[in-house]
Amino acid sequence: MTRPSAVPPPVTAVLDASSRWLPERLGRVEELLRREAGEGGDVLGADAEMTLAAGGKRLRPMLVLLCAGEAGDEVEVRSAAAIELVHMATLVHDDVLDHAELRRGRPTVAAASGRERATATGDLLFSRAFALLAEGGVGRATSLLSAAAVALARGELAQRRDAFDTTISAERYLERCRLKTAKLFECACLLGRDESSLGAFGAGIGLAFQLLDDVLDVSGPEERTGKARGTDLLDGTVTLPLIEAAAEDPGIRSADLRSLDPAGALALCERIAATGALERVRARALGIVEEAKRRLDSAGFKSEQRRLLDLVADGVVQRYS
Amino acid sequence: MTRPSAVPPPVTAVLDASSRWLPERLGRVEELLRREAGEGGDVLGADAEMTLAAGGKRLRPMLVLLCAGEAGDEVEVRSAAAIELVHMATLVHDDVLDHAELRRGRPTVAAASGRERATATGDLLFSRAFALLAEGGVGRATSLLSAAAVALARGELAQRRDAFDTTISAERYLERCRLKTAKLFECACLLGRDESSLGAFGAGIGLAFQLLDDVLDVSGPEERTGKARGTDLLDGTVTLPLIEAAAEDPGIRSADLRSLDPAGALALCERIAATGALERVRARALGIVEEAKRRLDSAGFKSEQRRLLDLVADGVVQRYS
Repeated sequence: MTRPSAVPPPVTAVLDASSRWLPERLGRVEELLRREAGEGGDVLGADAEMTLAAGGKRLRPMLVLLCAGEAGDEVEVRSAAAIELVHMATLVHDDVLDHAELRRGRPTVAAASGRERATATGDLLFSRAFALLAEGGVGRATSLLSAAAVALARGELAQRRDAFDTTISAERYLERCRLKTAKLFECACLLGRDESSLGAFGAGIGLAFQLLDDVLDVSGPEERTGKARGTDLLDGTVTLPLIEAAAEDPGIRSADLRSLDPAGALALCERIAATGALERVRARALGIVEEAKRRLDSAGFKSEQRRLLDLVADGVVQRYS
Repeated sequence: MTRPSAVPPPVTAVLDASSRWLPERLGRVEELLRREAGEGGDVLGADAEMTLAAGGKRLRPMLVLLCAGEAGDEVEVRSAAAIELVHMATLVHDDVLDHAELRRGRPTVAAASGRERATATGDLLFSRAFALLAEGGVGRATSLLSAAAVALARGELAQRRDAFDTTISAERYLERCRLKTAKLFECACLLGRDESSLGAFGAGIGLAFQLLDDVLDVSGPEERTGKARGTDLLDGTVTLPLIEAAAEDPGIRSADLRSLDPAGALALCERIAATGALERVRARALGIVEEAKRRLDSAGFKSEQRRLLDLVADGVVQRYS
């Protein structure tokens, strides 16, 4: 349950399929993000720009823009930049906590500039997100994004609390995913258009995103994920593949994650895979994505907008199938 | 330039002098803060409540309420709680960065629950601050507080950047104080009433607050400050007393703070004190407070409100004289 990292972006497929408005607006989001990096002055300059330049899939901004549709404008561009700033802030803080050296193939702020500067950089990105919304005078957006940020922090805390506990329930794991990942996807869609079916769509693909990422941590291959198999296990993060596998093979539940070394983690990955748990979790995630797409039926989208949202949803799945 | 910690609060004097409305409203702020601690569920429970229970002077909430005056109400109570949440969030993160064991005589969240949980707890308190304002639909307040939070993070970054550099200018030091301390005091006053003279009052007493705190770090005594003399020097934090002293005694500028041990820090404190720098910085801070109080002349306050604001300003000074 580390955050999704180096996986091929579904962004290209969506951009290819879109008419001019979406790339134009994503370009404005990038511009705003670059301006925000500059706002920090010399000090922030290096660290925040490093974070921005590292790129990322901009999946959350894209959801904001797509849910708003072509009619949307400045407010949505601003909201899209703000949600990405919050996402980046949490990544910077996560890397402090996880002692991560690399993210998206580049040194993390924590590794390059130290934990102190990384903590402050995260706080700054966080603050700029709300400043950006406040400048636009969008009360509803502030309300949505701050609630999502609260959920992120609660999810992070829940993950630390549950660390190394192989007996946690699937429900508890899913609740953690909702807080830590799904909520921000949900927020992205609601920032685009405040309608519960869109929120449910976002929450669904966010949850599937996390489930599939957790499958990848067990299945690898490393060439594709950019990290060693079993990284979550070594961190003490118990995810659905382990929980499902333990139902078939009770010995898994009594594994002592604290004493695990990389070879042991790899062996545990194999043991989990042997139960068929990976296929079950993957199927569950695919089902969640299909269900999420159905939620869009009632939204009355124009055909292009609907097609692009389906592509984003499929992108979450295709990266893993 | 660690944040002000265990110093006698001016709160009591102000409350004693106030009629019923101020204590009543501060009580509502406390209630709201307690409710916020509960919002985090079981997980946040322990850590956030520990932070809340540790108390503190509630100086910023008091400034919000006092500047709003008796006519203010729910909006100001909410803003007052929000600014305290941001303040607490930065304290929790500071303690992570400084490896602090104690704050206000109690274990810090970082010490009691680990750096990981402390980072997440800070993020959560931060998010709750903006959620609280958003619930109230107060766009102006969100704008003010997010800008102040940006300044705090920039101040923190500036302090890390300047660490161990004994050649920084007084102007650079003062700019850091403005970002790291004065801005939040200014914000508190503006949250109470959006008028530039009140902002200037808040910024003035915030700046004086930080200057005097930095004097205390050099002067001690430890029984009063609750920390060893020269703590800032050991952290590499160069403050105005050192900068002023170096103008008299150039040898001070070439001190190598990185190789300082506690005995060396104490000796450097003595050497700084011997130049008379502490008296000069103290006098400068007192001048700033007097100037700040004069800014209130044009605000047309009722006599009680003005008297209480003067008391808060005097409280900042009296703790040190």
